This record gives sequence, C-alpha cells and structure tokens, in this order.
Amino acid sequence: MSDLRIAVVGTGLMGADHVLRIRDRIAGAVVSAVIDPDTSRAEAAAADAPGARCFSSLADAIAADAMDAVLIATPGTFHQPDLLAVIEAGLPTLCEKPLTPDAASALEVVQVEAAGGRKLIQVGFMRRYDAGYMELRKMIADGGMGDLLALRCAHRNPDVPDSYTQQMLINDSVVHEFDIVRYLTHSPVTSVEVKHLKRNPNNAAHLDEPILVLLETASGVVADVEMNVSVRFGYQVKTEAVFADGIAEIGRTSGTTVWRDGRFSGAEHTTFKTRFAPAFEHEIQSWVNAAKTGTIDGPTAWDGYLVAAACAAGVRALEAGERVEVDYADRPAFYA
Amino acid sequence: MSDLRIAVVGTGLMGADHVLRIRDRIAGAVVSAVIDPDTSRAEAAAADAPGARCFSSLADAIAADAMDAVLIATPGTFHQPDLLAVIEAGLPTLCEKPLTPDAASALEVVQVEAAGGRKLIQVGFMRRYDAGYMELRKMIADGGMGDLLALRCAHRNPDVPDSYTQQMLINDSVVHEFDIVRYLTHSPVTSVEVKHLKRNPNNAAHLDEPILVLLETASGVVADVEMNVSVRFGYQVKTEAVFADGIAEIGRTSGTTVWRDGRFSGAEHTTFKTRFAPAFEHEIQSWVNAAKTGTIDGPTAWDGYLVAAACAAGVRALEAGERVEVDYADRPAFYA
Amino acid sequence: MSDLRIAVVGTGLMGADHVLRIRDRIAGAVVSAVIDPDTSRAEAAAADAPGARCFSSLADAIAADAMDAVLIATPGTFHQPDLLAVIEAGLPTLCEKPLTPDAASALEVVQVEAAGGRKLIQVGFMRRYDAGYMELRKMIADGGMGDLLALRCAHRNPDVPDSYTQQMLINDSVVHEFDIVRYLTHSPVTSVEVKHLKRNPNNAAHLDEPILVLLETASGVVADVEMNVSVRFGYQVKTEAVFADGIAEIGRTSGTTVWRDGRFSGAEHTTFKTRFAPAFEHEIQSWVNAAKTGTIDGPTAWDGYLVAAACAAGVRALEAGERVEVDYADRPAFYA
Amino acid sequence: MSDLRIAVVGTGLMGADHVLRIRDRIAGAVVSAVIDPDTSRAEAAAADAPGARCFSSLADAIAADAMDAVLIATPGTFHQPDLLAVIEAGLPTLCEKPLTPDAASALEVVQVEAAGGRKLIQVGFMRRYDAGYMELRKMIADGGMGDLLALRCAHRNPDVPDSYTQQMLINDSVVHEFDIVRYLTHSPVTSVEVKHLKRNPNNAAHLDEPILVLLETASGVVADVEMNVSVRFGYQVKTEAVFADGIAEIGRTSGTTVWRDGRFSGAEHTTFKTRFAPAFEHEIQSWVNAAKTGTIDGPTAWDGYLVAAACAAGVRALEAGERVEVDYADRPAFYA
Repeated sequence: MSDLRIAVVGTGLMGADHVLRIRDRIAGAVVSAVIDPDTSRAEAAAADAPGARCFSSLADAIAADAMDAVLIATPGTFHQPDLLAVIEAGLPTLCEKPLTPDAASALEVVQVEAAGGRKLIQVGFMRRYDAGYMELRKMIADGGMGDLLALRCAHRNPDVPDSYTQQMLINDSVVHEFDIVRYLTHSPVTSVEVKHLKRNPNNAAHLDEPILVLLETASGVVADVEMNVSVRFGYQVKTEAVFADGIAEIGRTSGTTVWRDGRFSGAEHTTFKTRFAPAFEHEIQSWVNAAKTGTIDGPTAWDGYLVAAACAAGVRALEAGERVEVDYADRPAFYA
Repeated sequence: MSDLRIAVVGTGLMGADHVLRIRDRIAGAVVSAVIDPDTSRAEAAAADAPGARCFSSLADAIAADAMDAVLIATPGTFHQPDLLAVIEAGLPTLCEKPLTPDAASALEVVQVEAAGGRKLIQVGFMRRYDAGYMELRKMIADGGMGDLLALRCAHRNPDVPDSYTQQMLINDSVVHEFDIVRYLTHSPVTSVEVKHLKRNPNNAAHLDEPILVLLETASGVVADVEMNVSVRFGYQVKTEAVFADGIAEIGRTSGTTVWRDGRFSGAEHTTFKTRFAPAFEHEIQSWVNAAKTGTIDGPTAWDGYLVAAACAAGVRALEAGERVEVDYADRPAFYA
Repeated sequence: MSDLRIAVVGTGLMGADHVLRIRDRIAGAVVSAVIDPDTSRAEAAAADAPGARCFSSLADAIAADAMDAVLIATPGTFHQPDLLAVIEAGLPTLCEKPLTPDAASALEVVQVEAAGGRKLIQVGFMRRYDAGYMELRKMIADGGMGDLLALRCAHRNPDVPDSYTQQMLINDSVVHEFDIVRYLTHSPVTSVEVKHLKRNPNNAAHLDEPILVLLETASGVVADVEMNVSVRFGYQVKTEAVFADGIAEIGRTSGTTVWRDGRFSGAEHTTFKTRFAPAFEHEIQSWVNAAKTGTIDGPTAWDGYLVAAACAAGVRALEAGERVEVDYADRPAFYA
Repeated sequence: MSDLRIAVVGTGLMGADHVLRIRDRIAGAVVSAVIDPDTSRAEAAAADAPGARCFSSLADAIAADAMDAVLIATPGTFHQPDLLAVIEAGLPTLCEKPLTPDAASALEVVQVEAAGGRKLIQVGFMRRYDAGYMELRKMIADGGMGDLLALRCAHRNPDVPDSYTQQMLINDSVVHEFDIVRYLTHSPVTSVEVKHLKRNPNNAAHLDEPILVLLETASGVVADVEMNVSVRFGYQVKTEAVFADGIAEIGRTSGTTVWRDGRFSGAEHTTFKTRFAPAFEHEIQSWVNAAKTGTIDGPTAWDGYLVAAACAAGVRALEAGERVEVDYADRPAFYA
C-alpha cells in the first residue's frame, strides 16, 4: 500500500514540528503539501519534507489534489472554514485543539459532519495516547481498585509568552483536562468551579494564577486541577487517581539518576514537546492508519464540541468565581 | 539530673502506646504514675512501666505528689477539668489533641493559663516534629524557592471504626492540617470550605467522604486537603508545596524495594503509629527536656485554641456546603 | 523520496517482530520481501506486510531485485554466507547479533567488506540506541563527573528455553556488554574473568548460573556484570556508573505507581521486547535513514568482530575459571 | 528501676557522639563517667553529660565503682587491656569495632570471656540494627523469594583523612561487610578476593582504590563489595540481594523531593552519622536493656574474632591479588 499523503495546514511551532515528526517517526505517510499564507514560512517547512509542495491556501491544495489527508495546526480561530472544506472534500483530518474557539461554531462543524455521514474530523487531544492515561483508563474500566472517587491533577508550565491571556488558562490549558476527565471516567463534565491560589509574583500583570479548577462528572467523580503556567522548574502533567481501594499515580518522570554534591537527581521535562512526544507519535500513527481506510480513530468532532461547551462554562466560572453548570446540546444520533 | 517523673492520664490505645514509648525510647524520663478510672486497664498499663503507681483520678495522683509532669491521653471531652488541674498544680503537661472539644472551652483554658503566668500546656500536634514538615517549614521560611502559593495535601486512612462520625472528619482528622498549615506558613487559617468527592461505597451509612477541604491563610496561601478515611490500601499523609519557582513534596514512603512477579514494590504505612513514630518520639523528648526546666517546648494552649476555632468553622463548612470564615478571639498578650 | 524496500531474512520470533515494527513504527520504509526456507512461516510473516513477496533464499530475492536493503534475523550460524552475498550485491544490511558465531568467520566478513570499500554491514547492538546508555555515554565523554572508574551491571532474564546452553551466557547474553562497555568507554575490552555466584536451583541441570563477569578495558575501567537468566521476577538491564565524583544509574523502570494492600508498586519489564522497544525503533530508523543513502549508521562489521573476539575470550574464561586476555587482530585501515 | 550508669571510654569523635546520644536518645541510661587520658577532652565531653565524672583511666573508674556498664570508643589498638579489665570486673560492655586489631589478640579476649562464663562483650557492628539489613535478614530466613544467591554491595564514602591507609580499606571499612554478610546468610565467610577498579585520581598518593571485594560464604553465596572511600558525592551503603525468584534492595535514600531548574532531587547522606543514626540508637538501646540484666544482646566477642580473622585474610588478599581462604579457630562451646 502506498504512503498516505498528508497536507499540513499552518507551519508555526506546532505545524513545523508535525512535519518533522511525520518525516522521521511515522510509518506509511509522507508530507505531500505544506499550506501557509506566509509563503516563506511554508517554504522553510517544506524544505524539511522531501517532495512536499507549498500552497498558500487549503483550497488551492484541494484543487491540486495534493493530499489524501489533512493535519490542521493553525490557531483555533482559523479552524472552522478549513474544517468545513475538508468535510466537503471528504478528507480525513486531524485538527489540533481546539476544534473551534467556541461551542456554537463547534456545533456547526458537528452538524455538517453528521449531515455528510462520514467521520472525518479527529481532534488533537493527544493525552488519550499517553501511556499513563491509557493505563489509568484501563484500570478505571477494569474495576479492580473499586470505584473511582476523585482525580487530583496538576498541569504545570515553566512560563508562558506575554500573549497568553487569563482566559487561555481555560481555553488553552485546562481544555486538556475537560477531554481527558471525561475520557477516563466515561462520564461528561457537568460543572466547573475555579479557585484562585496565591498569585505567582513571577506573572505578567494581566495574569492571576495558579488556579485550582474543580470539575465534576455526571458520575460524581470530582477532579481538582492545579493549573499553573509559571512554575519555572519545568513542565509537568500528572494525575493521582483516588479509588475506593487504593491510589494510582501517573506522570512522574524517570530516567537516569545522578548522585552529585550530596543529592540524587533526575531530569524533569521542560516542555510539552518532550513530555508528550510518544503520545504525539502514537496519535498521528493511529490517525494515519485510519485515514488510509478513509476514516479516523480517536476523539471526534463531537468530543471537540463537548470540550468547547465545557470551556465556555470554565471561562464563566473563572470570571464569576462560582460553580457553573455546563450546558450541552443533545448528541446527534450520528455520534452515538 | 534525675529522670522526669511522668503521669500518663488515660490508658486507651494512645496512652498505653505512650507508656511504652517513654519506657523504651525517651531519655531522662520514667512513667511514675498511670491514671485511669478503669482500674484494671490502668494496672495493665502500669505493668509495662516498672515502678509506676496506679491512680483512678488525676486529683489523687497530684495529692500523692506522684509526678513532675503529665501526659493527657484521654478523649478530648474529658480534657478541660484535667487541664485546669495541672495548671493549678503547676505541672508541665502534654495534652493530646484536641485541647478541648470546642473553641469556648479551649479559650477558658487559655485564659486560666495566661492568668497563671506560666506556659504549662503543650498540645500534641506531632506533625510539627515530623522530619518532612520540619524541612518544608525551613524551605518556606528560607525563601529560596520563592513565595509559597499552595499546599496540596492528602490525609488517607485505611478505615475507621463505626464510632467515627461525620464531624470527626474535621475534629479528629483535618484538625492536624489546621495546625500544620498555620505552622508552615506563619499565617492563620482564615476560611474553610468543604467539597464532597464521590462517596466511597466502602463507608458505613452515616459517613459521606472523602472530602476536599480548602483552607485559606491570611497570607493568601490555599491548602486543598483530600481527607479520606476509607482508602483501604494504607495510611498516608503527604503534602506537595507549590512555590513560585518549584515544587517540594513530603510524605513519600521509602525503604526496601522488592522485585517480584513482574513488579517492583515497597511497603506503605498502614497506621499513624508507624508513619509518625519518629515524630512522636521527637515530640515527647522535646517536651521532657523542657518539662525538666518547668516549661514546655511546642504548640501552646493558644495554638490549641486557634485550631479549635478553625475546627468550629470547618464543621459549619462541612454542614453548610459553603465557605466559612474563621472567627478568632484576640490573642492574649501572654502568647505574643 | 520513495520508501526504502527492506528484505527481512529469517522469520522466527525476532524477524517476525521486525516485520511488524517496520510496518507500524518506521518512517520511509516498507517490507518488500520476506525470506525463509520454511515457506509457510515466510508466508505468515508476509501476510503482516502488505505488498511483501516471499522467497525461500536470499539469492532468489537478490536475483529478483526485491529490495534496497536487508535485515538479517536468522540464527548466527547462518549469517556468514548471507553477509558475503549482501556485500557482493552492495545492499546496506542490518544484521542481528552476533555478526557470525566466531571471531575467525567474523574477521573474514570484515576483510571482504573492507576489500569492497563500502560500509554495508551494521550489527544489531541495539543498546547503543537506548536513551539511558546514550545519556551515560555523553556523561562519560563530557567529563563533568570526573573519570569513569567502574561499571556495575546487571542483565537479568526471567528464564530461558531448554535449548539455552552454558556458552550462550557469554555468546548470547554477555555479548551485549562486550559491545556497550567499549562503546561507553571508547576503549577496548582487554580481559575477561568469570566468577560463579550461587547456582540458581530453578535452573535446568546443564546450566550453572548466575555468573559474575569481570571485564577490563584498556583504559582501566572495570565492569562487573551479573549475568542472570533465571531470576523469574522480570527482565532487567541496568548499569551503575562509578565516576571519580559521583554515580549515575540507568535502567530503572518507571511508569504508573499503584498503592494497594499496604504496598506501592510499579510494573517491571518481563521481556527485552518491551524493555528495548524504543531502542529497536531508534536503531532501525537510523539504519533506514542511512541505507537510503547507500550506507549504514551504527556498529560496524569491525565492531561485530571485536565482540566476537571478546566472546571467544569470555567462553575460555567461563570454562577455565581464570582471567583471560582478549586477542584482537589489527584493525584494517578501512575502519579507522 | 534506676538508670544504667554508663562509662564512656575514649572521647574522640565517636565517643563524644555516644555521650550525646545516651543523654538525648536512650531510655533508662545515663553517662556516669567519661574516661580519657587527655583530661581536657574528657572534661569537654563530661560537660555534655550532667552528673558525669571524669577519669583518666578505666582502672580508676572501676576502682571508684563509677559505672554499671562500659562503652569503649577508643581506637582498636587500645581495646585489648580494657576488654580484659571489664571482663574481670564483670561489666557489660559495648566495644566499637574492631574488637582488637588482629585475630590472635581477639582470640585471647574470647578465651578469657569464655573462661569467665558470662557474655559481657558486645561488638559495635551497628548495621545489624539498621532497618534495611534487619528486613533483608528476615526475608532471607523466610525463604519466600527462594534461595539467596548473591549480594551486590556498595560502601561509598565522600573522602577519608590523610591518615587513612590502604589496609584500612579492609580493617576499617570492609570490616562491616565481613560481619553483616555472615549475619544475613547465617554462614561464615570462607574466602576473600580483591580486584582493583580504576584508581580514583582524587586519592592521596598512598591510596589505590576503589576496590571490588569478593566474599564467599560456606553456603555458596557470593558478595561483591564496591569499597570506595573517595566518591565525593556523599555517603552511601547499599545492598542488592539476588534471590532465586527476585531481587531486594536496601539503602536507597528518600525524604523530601524538590523540583527545581529542570530536575527533581533529594538529599543523600554525607556521613555515616546520619545514615546510621537510627541504627546506633537501636544498638545502644538494646545493649542498655540487656546490660541492666547483666548481659549483652548483639554481636559477641566471638563474632568480633570471626571478623578479625576474615580481615586478616582480606588484607592478604589485598596485597597478594589472589583469592585467600579464611582460617578460623574452632568455636568454643561457650559460644555455641
């Protein structure tokens, strides 16, 4: 079987990274097109992908039949028209989160996809492909530790650029927990509440964090998430699952241990790129394998909508300082 | 210098344990008296302490000049008259927590002690003597990791007896966090809020836990405490301190590692007795050393009162489901 | 650039595994041919590789121009004629260890390759691609911990098949240390000594192990290797490096930690397949990338010869119970 | 029961430490006498022990009936006459290792004690009181992991004073392994062999180490000991026990974990004083408890002799570079 031809839309940090990953780590796929309105950036990325053509718009690439599948890595505000276009063109697509910037536009994508009758849009919630989360999900489903009661989570970044806003704490960062909590528990997030921890004086003036976000699922599980984007020491995503009969923890770093100067130590991640590198590879390989058969294998557009709705509640909770219930549209039969 | 003669009041689980500890692990002290209205229980405990006399009341022991210092290990509801008696008698005393069962009675003890002009009452908050908490306190004071922003705590018991009530989640268990959070941060706890995690089905019908308790200090630090008395696997008290520049964690078990049957493993504590054995020894040794000079060295009656006031707010928060502010009396100059 | 067409020779455990790995995890390559005299086994393996053709001999596959590169996964006793054939055909080849079963035949391969003037043979010492060993090698070269003084190694298998002989302790198992010690230290192994530890009563009658193998390098570093093929609990390869100023350890397992029944625990590997899965992927991807340019990138035929010579000394040491010096031929200028 | 009166002989580093330990951490004992020919050093130590008297010789202290028991902390070369004196005086005695500097003089002490008919001499092999070694001994005796096959040990010091000689590698350092290997395995050490690892360039000119010492027991267990007195980073004593069915490891440090600057880390010991502080306390408390009944509870003079004989073989092995068998006298019936 010949290689899947992938068009990468958007060649910023994330898109450029995906170009290299597909070239170096993914079996059965090639980057056949690189799409960016910024032509020089597109050409730089294409230089890393032997044989890839450059386009300044997705429409042009579709018209040129330049690909079998699409990977969207532009900012979320640009996603909706491209998503509608790939559904129209029948191209299996992996769309980096968020699906779209708000619940209403996400619901439109869902409705268009459902009307088309084919699952073509996969959303880039890569945590589902992380070995720890996968093992934890199995443990929960398995029931050997008794009921899951709580998830105690930490999501820590060393720092963020000045462009990172207060709302992005929810839309850019907690967004991952909205998906993974539901994925782990098989139960939707029904409410969100936000508590402010003591403000980190390292922060830019417009940022008030870390925060503690409390999510509750329909099944009664409570997840408390320390969302911290300024903790300097490194990048860390971990979860402690509290079961009726015991505890499980994922996300500890390991590797070489060094004894020096009266201490033993090991390296911690400093960026999501290394922390989730195996998850990204696993995610994209799974998608490539599915895309060759004309479909997807992972979080759907509907999952993307659910998270968008939860984020909307999260932003209201962040602003209001109160518990906010999440409001979901009915699930189309297509996604049952 | 001759050994400090200690009278142990109350020979239940805790008192009997202290008798053995003083005999086996404490330098410069002997158990000279064992006091319990249940004579046969007192005699059983005294049999473990060569030379100890039995009394059925503290008054009798004081009248007989049977001791230089007193260790109170009766249930909290019986503490107040005994505390007033030892103050009257001028005997340095270590009183197991709680000081008294409520803030009003605790304040009376404080006032009587202050009127007497000597610090005689030390409260048994043994976590202050745990190596991990001591190291963490030093790290916070030291400032090398930047401001302390949050404390993420877990207090887990394998199970509790049927007599353990819902209010005891606060008065018997979270009570320790009320003291240690203030001790670590040098700032009083100003509010309490309680969230219910998913109820553990292992629980007796009258217990609804685990709970997540949110404490805030005057300095803005938030401590979230998973209070869990039914987690089966073992006994665990741990804290993750979130600083501006990094993280510190205390309370992980260590010891012999065994590789068997495809896993590596190590022993976890199953009771506070082993988890805090070094802390209890350290606490009692410090108190003995101070008592020889007629005073105490550790949490005072005033600390006991502050915790009682916080517990009162905690119980209201548990029942009301809302954030409750803690109401403190003014600090007597005596404790400045 | 089109995919590298790989012929896999030998479809036993290892060969079948490589077929799946190339299909699922390697970028820019396809299995184009599967070669095994056992036709039904070859067909079974080919069924896993869409488009692959079956051959009963390497010669037939070469004649059919069925591949751009060769991966040899037959037992070592069959390697030599195939190695000579791929050199003759100019095909970049990854040959599973050992290069050949003895030093003399290995030297012949080396001489033929050198005469041909192209480096075509890479030997499958996958430890060089393990993250831990790579980090350790860098640390040694870097010098920040001072001189490397010793390596304390353990190589533990849960068990071995009845066909595993006493000599295979050296030729099949310690063989990896012969390569990696030299690779880490940049210095050849000059002597071998073998000590018997207490015999594991789990062993088959013909096996007397575990053994402790002492290797010395020209630079004076001593590696002591616990070679243990019957330790039941799991599969473990680890090394503690003793430097002048500190210690570094690689090979500890990590992952999800579970607290249950009074213990905390984590999974240990039970087979080299999972322990070295990332190393195998890294090794084969590196080789594929090089093979596309007509060469190799990794341990050479000369490295394979050096290890064969060290193994010969190791077998003599195992049998003689004495320290044996390793006898090496002069290095051909071609491998300088 | 009144406190045991202890005379501490020798007030160097070790003796002064024991004075403080008895005062601060040992129940039912007081330092009643401090003995040192260096009067000013004796007085300094006595100042730490309220009520202790100073003597310039053991004979004077015995004549003054100044103690119920003796703790000898002088250098080994001075032990023999004092040991004979305490046996003569019938005083339970804890003698820091070595019992005496050589096997012949140790045997004399043994014979005198046996003739006296009372076990009065305990030797300070404190590792027997370390929680890890105790747990490991129980695991070996218990048999649940199958036969013990090997012990892989490391004994690492940050550095040593210039007065530390090459022979002290055996007599001062490996001495502990000679006792503990036999204690763990219930089987005498029958041979010793020494291998030189690469010399640490940090060493003084007269020191050639680290060394690897191979001990074999009568039961066939082999212990390989990395003896390293110059590893800078800290103080570490650890052992990995290789059983037929699994592995157990003792001696890893734990405690507070700190995440900073891209690494997680924890404190390692830097001196035996902290590493073995609980073992020293446990040892002395056990001895005190036994001494009150006129006897000892721990390694006997015979154990001290056995280690002296093994050290003699160890020194020969260090010098000869060959395996040396240990030569033991017959065990007196008294120690059966």
